[in-house]
Amino acid sequence: MKKILNKPEAFVQEMMEGIVAAYGDKVTTLNGDYRVLVKNTSTKKGKVGIVTAGGSGHLPVFLGYVGDGLLDGCAVGNVFASPSAQKMADMIKACDNGSGVLCLYGNYGGDKLNFDMACEMVEMDDIETRTVLVSDDVASSPQAIKEKRRGVAGMVYAFKIAGAAAESGLSLEEVTRVAKKALETTRTMGVALSPCIVPEVGKPTFTINENEIEIGMGIHGEPGIEVRPMMSADEIASLVLEKILEDAPLSSGDEVSVMVNGLGATPLEELLIVYRKLHQILSSIGVRIFMPHIGEFATSMEMAGLSVTVIKLDEELRNYLRFPGQSPFYTNANK
Amino acid sequence: MKKILNKPEAFVQEMMEGIVAAYGDKVTTLNGDYRVLVKNTSTKKGKVGIVTAGGSGHLPVFLGYVGDGLLDGCAVGNVFASPSAQKMADMIKACDNGSGVLCLYGNYGGDKLNFDMACEMVEMDDIETRTVLVSDDVASSPQAIKEKRRGVAGMVYAFKIAGAAAESGLSLEEVTRVAKKALETTRTMGVALSPCIVPEVGKPTFTINENEIEIGMGIHGEPGIEVRPMMSADEIASLVLEKILEDAPLSSGDEVSVMVNGLGATPLEELLIVYRKLHQILSSIGVRIFMPHIGEFATSMEMAGLSVTVIKLDEELRNYLRFPGQSPFYTNANK
Repeated sequence: MKKILNKPEAFVQEMMEGIVAAYGDKVTTLNGDYRVLVKNTSTKKGKVGIVTAGGSGHLPVFLGYVGDGLLDGCAVGNVFASPSAQKMADMIKACDNGSGVLCLYGNYGGDKLNFDMACEMVEMDDIETRTVLVSDDVASSPQAIKEKRRGVAGMVYAFKIAGAAAESGLSLEEVTRVAKKALETTRTMGVALSPCIVPEVGKPTFTINENEIEIGMGIHGEPGIEVRPMMSADEIASLVLEKILEDAPLSSGDEVSVMVNGLGATPLEELLIVYRKLHQILSSIGVRIFMPHIGEFATSMEMAGLSVTVIKLDEELRNYLRFPGQSPFYTNANK
Repeated sequence: MKKILNKPEAFVQEMMEGIVAAYGDKVTTLNGDYRVLVKNTSTKKGKVGIVTAGGSGHLPVFLGYVGDGLLDGCAVGNVFASPSAQKMADMIKACDNGSGVLCLYGNYGGDKLNFDMACEMVEMDDIETRTVLVSDDVASSPQAIKEKRRGVAGMVYAFKIAGAAAESGLSLEEVTRVAKKALETTRTMGVALSPCIVPEVGKPTFTINENEIEIGMGIHGEPGIEVRPMMSADEIASLVLEKILEDAPLSSGDEVSVMVNGLGATPLEELLIVYRKLHQILSSIGVRIFMPHIGEFATSMEMAGLSVTVIKLDEELRNYLRFPGQSPFYTNANK
């Protein structure tokens, strides 16, 4: 398998240089540090800051959501590796407008450890922080210990909704409440058809047999719950939605948004065929879909497969979801 | 290799059902015909219609550009196959607002034959049509017979710019002039790293050896100009840009837009690394880049690889490029 790069060890640096070359009027490095990306557009005075961080290799996650009405900053790690606490602390300081900063990120050991340290570091500068962990992957841990679940594509809804709440002028407490509320009703499950290649490793980090599909695999290739013979699009849609609804049931009259997220190598045509079935099933039980998201929102480089996210909306979440938000990698113009 | 689908022969129908289920408020089928997609939003009285057509398997091309300030309609063929003349004629009639219709599509034999027939068919209904062929692929034919070149990702710029001209109220003659002018300065070249699978065939339609890259390959796997040992990102960027500039030279002070288009399986990170080098080279010769497009705009399902498009802008083309345009698959909000 081949990758388009120069030196593997320069992968992240050169990707960041590409982003700044392309979109430098909207996002930029923090004082020339290519491992912290911040907004380069005007920010409302006193707006609560929202930041995230995580390993590279998941574009548009994480840094692709730095933008207006979305995130203020993102600390950028190596491929599939957490950035350091110091980078996170620098970022939090830069993204504080005097009203505090929400740290909103996926539930992974390294990120958690480093963010906890970073929050302690900025406390000495009298910057107030709150933390909300994204743990939407139903396949990664049973319901009884759902606080151990990993954060996957559902974080995009959390970024969007919390970002809108902050842009609307809510306080740190309130933005934190809204982010938690959004995540409380967000569930994701993925399936993988092929592995991906970490540049510095240079070969697939795991294997999936031809004619097999792994159910519930994580975005770094964490093992799923089951390997099955390859399934049809309708079977995949039905199985994944069944697992999500077992965990967070829906009733007739409910409104949701649904994301069908390609992991990297899966054609958009195939995502749409899966969406078709999800729409059929949800319609049949009286659930309406608002602002579907179909495309690549949280990838694992060239992994083939997809994830499905369902978020149940109430009026408040719906309004923040449709609120304007825009980055070089995401726009909700299609509301 | 695995595809997420149900029956191969239902691939296009079910993809279309997914699109209408997701985005039916913006685009819809023509009188229930799933092989013609038309805008479902209001159209200015007397606006010149713009339509396209082509085989499936290239999303967002072609139908993904039906939207406000873009295209009015798209006839949809089977994977990599032209739709029929009758579908095209139905579409042209539906997209005429009394001011005529521009047929803007890629230079492929089947599409050309069928569109020519369709234009004759609607002549009997007194609908005036014009035809502009997209033939931006520099690798597909030498400069001396460039009218034989295939149309690839550069068509997205033509859709965007002609769509803006029509939305601005220009006449059929003028919209045609603008489309031709845009294409006159548009050049594309692609490289492929792996093949793709036509659903009804079920296996790769060609092979590229491990550790090799095919230079100049078409979006249906048409042979390129050369097979080389795998190259670095900088080498790919330099080679492709060199071929483009040989064909359409640029000078210091020129302004262009640049598209780095993923063919399906190539990570966004890698497209950004290629963009970085293109930006360096163009900057070094004094060429400015406006509104870069980096992502998947014209794919070949799960093919790995990318294409680079350069369009030279003048004030008129620049203004139409930045003019608002939006579909479920494209927005130029990031101007």
